Amino acid sequence: MCDFPKNEDNTVKRNPDRGHYDKPTIYNILDEAMICHIGLIHREKPVVIPTIFARKNDHLYIHGATTSRLLLELQKGLPISLCVTHLDGLVLARSAFDHSMNYRSVVINGKAFLVEDENEKKDALHCISERLIKGRWDEVRPPSEKEMKATTVLRIEIETASAKIRSGPPSDNPEDYQLDIWAGVLPSSLHWGTPEADPKLKKGINQPGSVTAFYKK
Amino acid sequence: MCDFPKNEDNTVKRNPDRGHYDKPTIYNILDEAMICHIGLIHREKPVVIPTIFARKNDHLYIHGATTSRLLLELQKGLPISLCVTHLDGLVLARSAFDHSMNYRSVVINGKAFLVEDENEKKDALHCISERLIKGRWDEVRPPSEKEMKATTVLRIEIETASAKIRSGPPSDNPEDYQLDIWAGVLPSSLHWGTPEADPKLKKGINQPGSVTAFYKK
Repeated sequence: MCDFPKNEDNTVKRNPDRGHYDKPTIYNILDEAMICHIGLIHREKPVVIPTIFARKNDHLYIHGATTSRLLLELQKGLPISLCVTHLDGLVLARSAFDHSMNYRSVVINGKAFLVEDENEKKDALHCISERLIKGRWDEVRPPSEKEMKATTVLRIEIETASAKIRSGPPSDNPEDYQLDIWAGVLPSSLHWGTPEADPKLKKGINQPGSVTAFYKK
Repeated sequence: MCDFPKNEDNTVKRNPDRGHYDKPTIYNILDEAMICHIGLIHREKPVVIPTIFARKNDHLYIHGATTSRLLLELQKGLPISLCVTHLDGLVLARSAFDHSMNYRSVVINGKAFLVEDENEKKDALHCISERLIKGRWDEVRPPSEKEMKATTVLRIEIETASAKIRSGPPSDNPEDYQLDIWAGVLPSSLHWGTPEADPKLKKGINQPGSVTAFYKK
């Protein structure tokens, strides 16, 4: 079964042709993102907070300080909404009305659970690290016992999920194509600039394999 | 008065030195963003949705189809949370624990109100358009009466706001600086690729001033 069930919570109603419910599409969008925006209800109000995350199989992991308000709140098993958005371009149509954006977004509805098992916790942190920059984990000083205690990891179990994608050129009203107005797409993407070594770097330390590989992607 | 009041809803507790409450800092972060993530409570659950927005003075405007579930819900005057995040880089420390990200984020708590006045509505749409690409509004076919009716504009009134910023090199444990481990920052930013003209573009139409100016920024 490769699709998430469609229900009232996740069905894309506006522009339904942009909605996707299959795991490969949803997971590809999630796996390309480094941050997500998590929504929860706190003291009867919605709160949205950005955070790093990673997916492993059908779960997502987030982490933070054991003292974090977000994490303390979330581990109560409250419902959460998690959103990831990639901006792929501005879509310039011939009419103001048909201007749009190219994007790929995913909205997850689920619940967060405290990861209590030490092995799962270490594995989740490794997974988040590898997501951000592959190979880095093995190059650095691993977490101490004290650092592990200061870190909380939550596992997000997905209940429903949907992706929404817009791509391609503008879609104008048929009669607008005859107007003498330029139309097209201004494509956008996340760009990685040249690595900046820490000014306090010890002499004689070369750029590591993880960084070189990161830029070869 | 240039600062937003600090209260239980917006005070940055984790890494309080990263918290900012002044309007110039908060508005600069908002004004650089093209999309925000809005959180609301729908059927007792949190929902997070990405959307285009623009700021005018002390208000934010969002828009969408009159039939949009998000907009229908929001115009009831429900509390919302709105978050904008710029990812500025990966921070690679000498320890796994001190890895981080450079970012600038803003969280707004407020309420959304339906814009009923036709002049304010047109002004808000113009404002959103100018935010995305300056000068474009005057180059294109303006909205028809029917298109205006199909569009809902909401004004978000800000109740509390805060920014959170991390920048600069890694911050390692004092004893970790002696380790033979590379550390530094991999900077990231949104990149705009070459404009892609609509394949259905009428012959003889040159790239307009708005697009040329956009790439000169």
